Order: sequence, then C-alpha cells, then structure tokens
Amino acid sequence: MIRVIGIDPGLRCLGWGVIGVDGARLSHIANGQCVSSGDDLAVRLLSLHQQLTAVLTAHRPTHAAVEQTFVNRDGAGTLKLGQARGIAMLVPAQFGLPVAEYAPNAVKKAVVGVGHADKRQIGHMVRMQLPGAVPAGEDAADALAIAICHAFHAQTAGRLARAIKAAS
Amino acid sequence: MIRVIGIDPGLRCLGWGVIGVDGARLSHIANGQCVSSGDDLAVRLLSLHQQLTAVLTAHRPTHAAVEQTFVNRDGAGTLKLGQARGIAMLVPAQFGLPVAEYAPNAVKKAVVGVGHADKRQIGHMVRMQLPGAVPAGEDAADALAIAICHAFHAQTAGRLARAIKAAS
Repeated sequence: MIRVIGIDPGLRCLGWGVIGVDGARLSHIANGQCVSSGDDLAVRLLSLHQQLTAVLTAHRPTHAAVEQTFVNRDGAGTLKLGQARGIAMLVPAQFGLPVAEYAPNAVKKAVVGVGHADKRQIGHMVRMQLPGAVPAGEDAADALAIAICHAFHAQTAGRLARAIKAAS
Repeated sequence: MIRVIGIDPGLRCLGWGVIGVDGARLSHIANGQCVSSGDDLAVRLLSLHQQLTAVLTAHRPTHAAVEQTFVNRDGAGTLKLGQARGIAMLVPAQFGLPVAEYAPNAVKKAVVGVGHADKRQIGHMVRMQLPGAVPAGEDAADALAIAICHAFHAQTAGRLARAIKAAS
C-alpha cells in the first residue's frame, strides 16, 4: 500500500491529507490544517515548515502531490502563495518523496468528474470516496482531493504500463 | 561585530553575501551563488535549501536581509520567484536569525545613493565599500548590496535609539 499526502498550499492556512492506496481501494489516514503564526513572513514560513515536517514524521507518506497554484493578476497574492508553495514542495522533498503537481481543474475532474465544481461538491465527494474521513476544513478537504487525484493518475499510469507490457 | 547575510533570491540562481559590521566599518566575509539543480521543482527547491543551509553553517551570520521581490505582470515568473523566496526566508529563520526585507530601490539608495542604478554601478559600489570583495556574479553582488543596505539601516536605527536615549 502506498500512502499519498496531498497538500493545498496557503500562507495563512495550509491543508494536508494523507490517504492509503491499495490497488483501486482508497482509505483515509489523516488530515488537518497547518495555521501559520507570527508577524514576520520568515517566522510564518518557519512555523509552516515545522508543522508540515511534524505531519510527515507522524504519517510517513510515500508519495506527495501539491496543488498547482492559480496565477492571477494579483501579483502580491501570487507572491505570498508562491512562498508558502515553496515550503509545501520543500518538506516532502526533504523526506525523499517524489512530488507531483496537479492543476485545480485536474483535481476537480478526478474527484467530482468535471473540471468545475464548488467547494461543497468537493467536500461531499471526498467524504464519499474516503469513508470515515472528516475534513478539518475546506483546505484539508482540498488536500484530500489532491491526494485522491494523485491516486487516480497513478492507477491510470499503472494500468497503462501493464497494458503496454502485456502487448509487447 | 555583527555578521549580516544578504540574499538575492532566484529559483535558478540565488546570490548570497556575508559582511561584518563593526560600528560604521564594513568588511567582506564571503559571497557566492547557489545554482539549483534537478528537473523537478521540488528537487530544485531542496537543492537551494541544502546549499543555503551549508552557507549559514559555514559563515554563521547573526542577521539576515532578503530582497523584496519585484511583483510584475508575469504571474508565472512571480510564482517561481515566490517559491525561491520562501526558501530564502526559511533558512535564516531556521537558524534563529531575524530576517529583514528591503525593496530593490532601498538597496540601490543605500549602496549607490540613488534609487535607480544599473547592475554595473552596484557592482562598483559594492567593491568600493567592501575592499577585497570579488563578487561571484551579479546575484552575489546584489546580495552583498542587500547586506550593506541592512548594515546602513541598522546603524541609522542605532544612532536614532542612542539620540532618543540621550535626549530623554
């Protein structure tokens, strides 16, 4: 069984969710939200790094997936998110994990079936696909959705590899 | 004597420079450029983190200053820079250093005397103010300029504090 951590980066609040993937069977392991503290940007980034490091130490995922940040016209907002995203990518790399990236609409498509879905739909489908999961908040639900998306893509890649092997 | 590390963040190349500050006297300690390696974003961020950690371990600065990133209309570029900047802020915070931030024109004003100056002028003034310094490249020269800017502001703040104390 592989263990996938999904991460939804944010400077104020970073969502995470760990799921188990055993063939086509998914199971919920844990989820939560790291809320940054401190006034200085550097201190806030440090607090996110420490909390996310503790999550990986506790739940030992084998794979990581991070949501690709939506780049908008708000340059200052993009920069803030970029800084948080730097931490979200760094921590799993420090644990030696491969880190995949998925665009928000790829995540929605994998979880809900369409590329446009609201937060409520995502939360509902996450609970449907991971029985027993109670997301700690919207960011944690999004993070679980990212983990599900990665499991879905990994399965597809695995089936494809087996089909190619069988055909050759 | 305090030791200031200046950092000019960049995803491909991150410049750093360490100077000694003894009252009004500045001295060059070391400078260099961390060049990220790897194809994956996470691996590149990890390589920057490892190299910058080695720099702080080797030169033990007591204060850090990071250039404020110029936010432009290129959202993808801003995001990349933000991710590198997250690492540039995180590493000194992990060493317990206070991390100051300066806008590019504040750095130029402190080093060259005006808020608009080209790279060549900055390189020249850095070598003037730090005898013996040979910057490893433009990013390292910028990083030394950021460290000089911090020393300048710290001195001004110190003089102000002493003046207030003397007057009270």
